[in-house]
Amino acid sequence: MKKNILVAQSGGPTSAINATLSGVIQTSLISSQIDIVYGSLNGVEGILQENFIDLTEIFQSTMDIEELAHTPSAALGSCRLKLKDYKEDDSQYKKIIEVFRKKEIGIFIYIGGNDSMDTVDKLSRYCEEQGIADEFCIIGAPKTIDNDLVMTDHCPGFGSAAKYIATTFSELDRDISVYQNGGVLLVEVMGRNAGWLTAASALSRMNGGNGPDLIYLCEVPFNMDKFIEDTKEILSKRGRVIVALSEGIQDSEGRYISELHAQKEKDAFGHTYIAGAGKVLEDEVRNKIGCKVRSVELNLMQRCAAHILSGTDIQESRMLGAKAVQCGLEERSGRMARIERISSKPYKIRFSSVSVSKVANREKKIPLEWIADNGHDVKDELIDYLLPLIRGEETPRYHNGIPEYYLV
Amino acid sequence: MKKNILVAQSGGPTSAINATLSGVIQTSLISSQIDIVYGSLNGVEGILQENFIDLTEIFQSTMDIEELAHTPSAALGSCRLKLKDYKEDDSQYKKIIEVFRKKEIGIFIYIGGNDSMDTVDKLSRYCEEQGIADEFCIIGAPKTIDNDLVMTDHCPGFGSAAKYIATTFSELDRDISVYQNGGVLLVEVMGRNAGWLTAASALSRMNGGNGPDLIYLCEVPFNMDKFIEDTKEILSKRGRVIVALSEGIQDSEGRYISELHAQKEKDAFGHTYIAGAGKVLEDEVRNKIGCKVRSVELNLMQRCAAHILSGTDIQESRMLGAKAVQCGLEERSGRMARIERISSKPYKIRFSSVSVSKVANREKKIPLEWIADNGHDVKDELIDYLLPLIRGEETPRYHNGIPEYYLV
Repeated sequence: MKKNILVAQSGGPTSAINATLSGVIQTSLISSQIDIVYGSLNGVEGILQENFIDLTEIFQSTMDIEELAHTPSAALGSCRLKLKDYKEDDSQYKKIIEVFRKKEIGIFIYIGGNDSMDTVDKLSRYCEEQGIADEFCIIGAPKTIDNDLVMTDHCPGFGSAAKYIATTFSELDRDISVYQNGGVLLVEVMGRNAGWLTAASALSRMNGGNGPDLIYLCEVPFNMDKFIEDTKEILSKRGRVIVALSEGIQDSEGRYISELHAQKEKDAFGHTYIAGAGKVLEDEVRNKIGCKVRSVELNLMQRCAAHILSGTDIQESRMLGAKAVQCGLEERSGRMARIERISSKPYKIRFSSVSVSKVANREKKIPLEWIADNGHDVKDELIDYLLPLIRGEETPRYHNGIPEYYLV
Repeated sequence: MKKNILVAQSGGPTSAINATLSGVIQTSLISSQIDIVYGSLNGVEGILQENFIDLTEIFQSTMDIEELAHTPSAALGSCRLKLKDYKEDDSQYKKIIEVFRKKEIGIFIYIGGNDSMDTVDKLSRYCEEQGIADEFCIIGAPKTIDNDLVMTDHCPGFGSAAKYIATTFSELDRDISVYQNGGVLLVEVMGRNAGWLTAASALSRMNGGNGPDLIYLCEVPFNMDKFIEDTKEILSKRGRVIVALSEGIQDSEGRYISELHAQKEKDAFGHTYIAGAGKVLEDEVRNKIGCKVRSVELNLMQRCAAHILSGTDIQESRMLGAKAVQCGLEERSGRMARIERISSKPYKIRFSSVSVSKVANREKKIPLEWIADNGHDVKDELIDYLLPLIRGEETPRYHNGIPEYYLV
């Protein structure tokens, strides 16, 4: 008997989450066991509100699916909703099951990060406990530019963001090199608790470029005095300094550097807001060294710059969507599709799945043994891990001088 | 008799200034009247310090010239030095002429913006007045991402920056569209006195995207109350607002919005520094509306993102370098190579030259009749002007997942 499949996206947008969606759609379209492919708008919120669209009807052209795979952000919208503990309140779960039955959903694929895997975990356990696990298969497909999910070698979206970051550092380093006195350039990269994206700045050295002079990751306690000292030394030698730093760098007591100055800034409603670690370091350099200094945030651009996609990332993201559907067809509820690395040189991987209970609510940081002993650079092991993930170029089609992205 | 040619770059780096340099090198290499092509390092500073490199020796492969044309920033370095008035102090001029004679320079090409054209103007007038104009031909080649040079339809570097900006807005708009409440995103674009780059954000609408909801250009006095009112209205209708603003927006009395909050911030040396117009507006939205708000600066990325070049820009930039050499060979000292537009639909241009005295120390702003009557959008005339400049893609070669840029 044919069943319908439902797919939704959640968490922060990336350049690759639509590639996973296109993998889900393509694999579903060729399956004789699947009838309609529904998309839920704004993640589980769309399920609770019964806000579905029929993707089978929308995607009747492979060219459209292709365009979707190269479109940044989340075509189905996203949400930040975390399901309640069903032991305390199972009303959301009852509603979801009601909607699934009404729409004859047999497989639900949730593409997202940590919180989304928590949803997959809770929902599949609920079905198990209710004795309805044979009715619904709940599967996770990973994505996060932060690359901090455990039990998968790396995460869709990370490779494209890392490629953007490596490329941008190679360009910024040239930009500040034109004057005889280039000053200090501080570049703040996303990553609240894991420094993977910031580490990718080191890949800007691959073709002979200087790359960042100093790299500060969340994993290593940040020492302001040492930073000023190191900056002064490089400035006197090279005439300019380019620094990569994670937004989430912390001092030895675990306080975010960005929050050290936060008390100064309160809005009319009394909320403090965070200036950004780059701005804090900019002030310090200005006050302690007094040289030309500028801080730059790669900000939202690093997660949505789909005009520079990693081919490896996009192809793997599609495959993970396909793998998730496959897990659904094999009725392996509560699993997350994942990537296991076989080797880095040459780069070889395999697609498999893992119990989502081992993934949810955990966080993968950079192993300390991959960070240089001086605390402000990366070791070759980290480069070997990162490099394959940014390889390959997938370029969107251009029209009117800008990329043609799928219109939702 | 063969002569040597000298080329130098000046002002802020762009993605296209090396394309003009490659045009100069290529045209010089095929001329039977030119012997050695020298490059001066760091603009006129390199002449005063006799800091030359022999480009004829360095560029013996067309592949290297090709790579140079796709490399951001200024391969010869830059400077901000403005020559003194020779009527008051002609020591710099005497030194330059001495170096020219020593190195047998017959043609000097200066690639740069407003200040560089001032140097070309002064130096050629000095030669004229000294009766040595037949010895040295001084020529300007334009570049500036700001697009604010007069007497040329547009400026090399602008098209590539505009393409980056249009593409980035199309990506950012998707990024903030994923949540049901997207809040306000303020995107600050370069341009102290002219809004050309900010206007390019409107090109993000070309393929059906929403693009910026509000566009604030330097040319129109900025009214904070009206801004808050318009933002509130769009927020209530669309659930999110994306705003493009020039760094140089000013109030009705001509004071920079960014400076309105500047007095708060002083460094240890007592210099005030500027928070940025985007940050000022962010504070206002937070205090007056209280919704989710974020400001993003496109910062240095907009002028060095050579991974997304405008084909039109790069080809025209090369041609302007070639045209400048041609002017030099025709002994037309004191001229700047330029582009004249014949038509926009279809896009047709011609290369010509103009007396640099008509260019130096002037500034081209957006004509007010190209700006929407509401003061926060652009008219079709401006789109028609801008669109051809971002068309065409020139993609650098990739190696190790990042672009291969020329190593200086």
